[in-house]
Amino acid sequence: MISLHGHPSGRHFLQIPGPTNVPDRVLRAMHRATIDHRGPEFGGLGRAVLQGMQWVFQTRSPVIIYPSSGTGAWEAALVNTLSPGDRVLMAETGHFAALWQRLATRLGLDVEILEGDWRHGADPARIEARLAADAGHRIKAVCVVHNETSTGAVTDVAQVRQAIDRSGHPALLMVDAISSLGAMDYRHDEWGVDVGVAGSQKGLMLPPGLSFNALSERALRAAASARLPRSYWDWSAMLTLNEGGYFPYTPATTLLYGLHEALDMLRAEGLERVFARHRRLAQATRAAVRAWGLELVCQDPAACSNALTAVLMPDGHSADALRKVILDRYDMSLGQGLGRWSGKIFRIAHLGDFNDLSLCGALAGVEMGLAAAGVPHRPGGVQAALDYLARPAAGRHEKG
Amino acid sequence: MISLHGHPSGRHFLQIPGPTNVPDRVLRAMHRATIDHRGPEFGGLGRAVLQGMQWVFQTRSPVIIYPSSGTGAWEAALVNTLSPGDRVLMAETGHFAALWQRLATRLGLDVEILEGDWRHGADPARIEARLAADAGHRIKAVCVVHNETSTGAVTDVAQVRQAIDRSGHPALLMVDAISSLGAMDYRHDEWGVDVGVAGSQKGLMLPPGLSFNALSERALRAAASARLPRSYWDWSAMLTLNEGGYFPYTPATTLLYGLHEALDMLRAEGLERVFARHRRLAQATRAAVRAWGLELVCQDPAACSNALTAVLMPDGHSADALRKVILDRYDMSLGQGLGRWSGKIFRIAHLGDFNDLSLCGALAGVEMGLAAAGVPHRPGGVQAALDYLARPAAGRHEKG
Amino acid sequence: MISLHGHPSGRHFLQIPGPTNVPDRVLRAMHRATIDHRGPEFGGLGRAVLQGMQWVFQTRSPVIIYPSSGTGAWEAALVNTLSPGDRVLMAETGHFAALWQRLATRLGLDVEILEGDWRHGADPARIEARLAADAGHRIKAVCVVHNETSTGAVTDVAQVRQAIDRSGHPALLMVDAISSLGAMDYRHDEWGVDVGVAGSQKGLMLPPGLSFNALSERALRAAASARLPRSYWDWSAMLTLNEGGYFPYTPATTLLYGLHEALDMLRAEGLERVFARHRRLAQATRAAVRAWGLELVCQDPAACSNALTAVLMPDGHSADALRKVILDRYDMSLGQGLGRWSGKIFRIAHLGDFNDLSLCGALAGVEMGLAAAGVPHRPGGVQAALDYLARPAAGRHEKG
Amino acid sequence: MISLHGHPSGRHFLQIPGPTNVPDRVLRAMHRATIDHRGPEFGGLGRAVLQGMQWVFQTRSPVIIYPSSGTGAWEAALVNTLSPGDRVLMAETGHFAALWQRLATRLGLDVEILEGDWRHGADPARIEARLAADAGHRIKAVCVVHNETSTGAVTDVAQVRQAIDRSGHPALLMVDAISSLGAMDYRHDEWGVDVGVAGSQKGLMLPPGLSFNALSERALRAAASARLPRSYWDWSAMLTLNEGGYFPYTPATTLLYGLHEALDMLRAEGLERVFARHRRLAQATRAAVRAWGLELVCQDPAACSNALTAVLMPDGHSADALRKVILDRYDMSLGQGLGRWSGKIFRIAHLGDFNDLSLCGALAGVEMGLAAAGVPHRPGGVQAALDYLARPAAGRHEKG
Repeated sequence: MISLHGHPSGRHFLQIPGPTNVPDRVLRAMHRATIDHRGPEFGGLGRAVLQGMQWVFQTRSPVIIYPSSGTGAWEAALVNTLSPGDRVLMAETGHFAALWQRLATRLGLDVEILEGDWRHGADPARIEARLAADAGHRIKAVCVVHNETSTGAVTDVAQVRQAIDRSGHPALLMVDAISSLGAMDYRHDEWGVDVGVAGSQKGLMLPPGLSFNALSERALRAAASARLPRSYWDWSAMLTLNEGGYFPYTPATTLLYGLHEALDMLRAEGLERVFARHRRLAQATRAAVRAWGLELVCQDPAACSNALTAVLMPDGHSADALRKVILDRYDMSLGQGLGRWSGKIFRIAHLGDFNDLSLCGALAGVEMGLAAAGVPHRPGGVQAALDYLARPAAGRHEKG
Repeated sequence: MISLHGHPSGRHFLQIPGPTNVPDRVLRAMHRATIDHRGPEFGGLGRAVLQGMQWVFQTRSPVIIYPSSGTGAWEAALVNTLSPGDRVLMAETGHFAALWQRLATRLGLDVEILEGDWRHGADPARIEARLAADAGHRIKAVCVVHNETSTGAVTDVAQVRQAIDRSGHPALLMVDAISSLGAMDYRHDEWGVDVGVAGSQKGLMLPPGLSFNALSERALRAAASARLPRSYWDWSAMLTLNEGGYFPYTPATTLLYGLHEALDMLRAEGLERVFARHRRLAQATRAAVRAWGLELVCQDPAACSNALTAVLMPDGHSADALRKVILDRYDMSLGQGLGRWSGKIFRIAHLGDFNDLSLCGALAGVEMGLAAAGVPHRPGGVQAALDYLARPAAGRHEKG
Repeated sequence: MISLHGHPSGRHFLQIPGPTNVPDRVLRAMHRATIDHRGPEFGGLGRAVLQGMQWVFQTRSPVIIYPSSGTGAWEAALVNTLSPGDRVLMAETGHFAALWQRLATRLGLDVEILEGDWRHGADPARIEARLAADAGHRIKAVCVVHNETSTGAVTDVAQVRQAIDRSGHPALLMVDAISSLGAMDYRHDEWGVDVGVAGSQKGLMLPPGLSFNALSERALRAAASARLPRSYWDWSAMLTLNEGGYFPYTPATTLLYGLHEALDMLRAEGLERVFARHRRLAQATRAAVRAWGLELVCQDPAACSNALTAVLMPDGHSADALRKVILDRYDMSLGQGLGRWSGKIFRIAHLGDFNDLSLCGALAGVEMGLAAAGVPHRPGGVQAALDYLARPAAGRHEKG
Repeated sequence: MISLHGHPSGRHFLQIPGPTNVPDRVLRAMHRATIDHRGPEFGGLGRAVLQGMQWVFQTRSPVIIYPSSGTGAWEAALVNTLSPGDRVLMAETGHFAALWQRLATRLGLDVEILEGDWRHGADPARIEARLAADAGHRIKAVCVVHNETSTGAVTDVAQVRQAIDRSGHPALLMVDAISSLGAMDYRHDEWGVDVGVAGSQKGLMLPPGLSFNALSERALRAAASARLPRSYWDWSAMLTLNEGGYFPYTPATTLLYGLHEALDMLRAEGLERVFARHRRLAQATRAAVRAWGLELVCQDPAACSNALTAVLMPDGHSADALRKVILDRYDMSLGQGLGRWSGKIFRIAHLGDFNDLSLCGALAGVEMGLAAAGVPHRPGGVQAALDYLARPAAGRHEKG
């Protein structure tokens, strides 16, 4: 693979919001001979990662692991719980919410969209109002994206749950936690989520290739009567074999090795510290953006993502031109604008296996890139981040 | 992962028919930082592996790559081409054929089974007869397994195609080439297959996690009107983005790195030599089985698999007890009996990254295991394999 | 590196007596970022491997670790303990003993050789006689090779010690344990060795690049007055810094990572089991050689090496031609004849990370190679090895 | 290795001046099975790296590769060319020059020191004067350190050569290029160096464990009559076997794999670009130091190293306390003060596999560390580096 070999000197800065940087430990764990997926050794591995995923999801309900991208877990959530023509209420918070909607439509569901401006999280009040109006309980599920990766705006899942409860509506709550799990606090049981959806390549620090469904009692009951055709995604065969740590079809063993190691790393750091670290790095990034005089995509200060920061370009300037300059000159990949934000925003990821100095390097690349691309801005963003990070109390999770 | 570390000395002999041994080169290629799956570097990688897969399938039609197990590619073949209630004719050659049938039934298809004895490949004459009788063309597809991994019996795909053609029936031909591709000759275009199904963890020498659909013009036409709901498996979005080497959702980058390397290895050896090597190792294995006085599962000498050899246990002896002795004493994993063969047969895989001396080691493990487990047999199987392998002309693909 | 990539299918059989096969675990441990060799983390690593090496050498005296090949440790043993013109008595057991002699001569020592026939270990009686005759104690050191890698003949070090003691001579005892340490029982303290010499690439299962000196009180006293110039090899600066786990010059960090892992593996298996495993594999190999009707280089059945087996070619047949056939046809590297044995013998290594089935594969390669090269022999060597290995009591270290 | 596993999140910043960061490509190349060091495949590897090292040294004379640390190559340079009691003139430019002197003294040489203040390179005029005064040509060699790793001050080797030539003195010129080779321009032939000394773990981007001697015709002639005892370090046996790509004793194969890959990387970038990159990163670092108001150890602006920058602490502030704060808080290792600079300076390495954004991260760590440790300084160092690096012409080697 010529191009992969001819890289420039030093380490590439991969600052897209997934796939994130895979720690060397995880790559090493994956650099291992495949084993018999029906042998005794495998069962121990399988049980360990299944239990570990419950811990990350903060749930006592089962978690399903698929060899697939996160898109597969979206599909799995729907086909296991719904029947053809069922109505689902989906909050349109950004590009990924829109993709999930399209997927649901293709599966033959009746998708009702709560439109949004792609600059905020989902609005619990509107969800409550809509459910309250659905006297006949035609709506079978409410779907929201916890951390909308295309905008950096967060939906308050606990409040969505309360909104549903207040409306007295029996709809299931499905949450896309793809870019939040392992980076931001996600409490599956406490928040009363019925199906949580996640992928391997974000906060879990793995390469892409695994996806997850975290279930609930209600989701399992819904599965018993759901009639969308399903086989690959079917929870039931999974649950039976998962008891011994096995899977109904060949699992992606190598990625499970990596998952085992990543879970070890998260456990060693502790989820609270992991979340505090992400918050701290996000604050520093937002301080830099403010100092540059640029505008965040997310308009609700309380809803800004700790996993990534999306930045609006000044009028008349192309985000893609900026990203190209930064890639060519400083060997850093930033996230592009997606859907209606195409060309108009860029996204700085600060999630996964990441730390203060790497963030400073990344922000330096943005600041130098803004200059090189002729984008109007004030210098001093990196300095603002340094000032924030150097403060003793800056979100640091002190030892002891 | 304590148990994975506490291995006995030396290399484990992984002789299950997939996942097969992953060459060090492939593991090294996968030990690489993830890159931006929307960046320019990725496009080159994507195009290279997509073209490489056409070469392996021996097709000029597109090949689809999924982040999923082979089971996913079974599902993809059906949902892209068929509509609810469509009838499919499936030849029951063994456990994997039976699993594919169950999957088809779950998806809402009307499955008609051509029963088999799990000791032969599919019978073209019976297929022809059945299609000839289907004057109304209710049957939309014929599904066969090229190399039935549970029995080691091969279906002659070219003859199945001719049978279909002779019957004048328009049914699509779908072929599971999961354990044959990259190990045994599979000619997608020449044989007129409409959908070929494969996985990464067999002849392609990769860990599990990727699966494939090779298409045809007729399959693409069928897809245009097929009405089974589909999104993750949908070919059309794939085909559009694949043109640039990209994918509609996050691909399993790490496995694609490995696929790129595995394709390089197959190209360096040459497909013909690869097939000849598998034939040679299979002949040696069968010579050993004959010398032991044991019986092959496959009853048609012309249909014996070059990828694995399934062996019947003498009456009253448990294959699983034998496999356990061999695993405990000689650190070798053999394939178990599946479905109706459970406990009654064991399977020796000889596919993928494998050579003469490793085969001799594996056969030595079987022979010593037979003795240790008290299974009636004649010694001399390894010697018979040596005698075969030492013959100058023994299927060796001479240089020059 | 084109040639390294263009390998044939399957795993190369590396059956030379060092470098031996490096276990995947060790390669993974070495695949790790270098750390500050003066930082706190390094100290822990250094102390762990220094203590681990004492355990392997079975000594309470210090062990020195050099970034060098084993040849460097030969030199270190001499320059730290001797002065220009000092006489050393060296038993000529084979090629490596001869190389050590040449090295000693070059350093300005007065080397007295006890000639040998390269088919036996050193003779304690002759050593005793020679020392008894040295009334003036001109001889300062006796040097023997524990396991002569060029012949597969072992010197009984305990008896050499007793011979020296009986003679009442104060000479130091220096022992080359390069190809025995970690494979055959070597008891530094119990046997009263003054300087033990070893390398990383044999029983320790590492790549080459580290070498070792195990010391004694007497060796340290000798070092205090020894006058051969030395700096790189000097023990004293090493000993001072080793206390904290550090080194006086930059250590080969990567190989120390590997050493740490290899020590873990040896500890998990247990030295006794490691030695029993080597004995068992050696017995099987010798059974094969006997069955082929070929002659062992080692003429003393009690002194045959458990690490490798050297085999004489029938008159008029070239060992190198045989080795070439085996390399080309069966992708196996065997050890060549060295020095006076050049072209006349081949050596089968069975040490390090190795097991029953790999040995069977290796012996199969020899047997098929003998046939292919037209070397007169009886078939049945592999069968004889199988028969030995299948016996329940065959040197197997039973669990519990 | 618990401590190595329990690392904090993200990548450690290893900013010591060797071992430097090993690129993933090099680690991957080293993650490879050992091969027979006497087999045909090895010869190709050996020849390739030996030729590659000539290219890096910019010499047509042979280069010797030792399995040893750089200290070994210091010793090798002396023992191959000198006899007991020979006088060598050594310029004391810093800690490493002092260590080389101590080593020479231990080997029995008569060391004459040109004292220095550890803040400048060697003074050609003083060397010329001293040689001119040595009418009897008692001085056999002049030894200088090209890039003094302990101070960041560079000696102008070409001028030293001219000084020797002007004096008409026949002394050999030996140059320690350990931390300059592969990072700063070193022209072995053009500058008339007789023995060049280097190591693997600096500009060559490898782990420690290999060292090098680049020779000259005159050095080879000196070797013919030199009488210091030598065997491991002896050039002659090396040169004979090196012709075929082999070595007289077991080479450190794994590190040679890595060297092959590192040479490929250097060739792909081009030596000129490599040097320009190091210059650029060094300039940015010095801009930061100036902005902080701190003082460089190197007092000659024309002699400041492009491989590392040594910084004086303000009076009363401990460099080690600062380094500890930075390690604990920001997970970065900086070089400590050595010898007379112990505790008084810290060193920022910017050599090897390194780029703009990583440097910005490293400088951010220093700036935040200065604040956290209460070291008087002006903020704005990172900003000054950004300003320098963002300038289009800032030492960037433009493509085309």
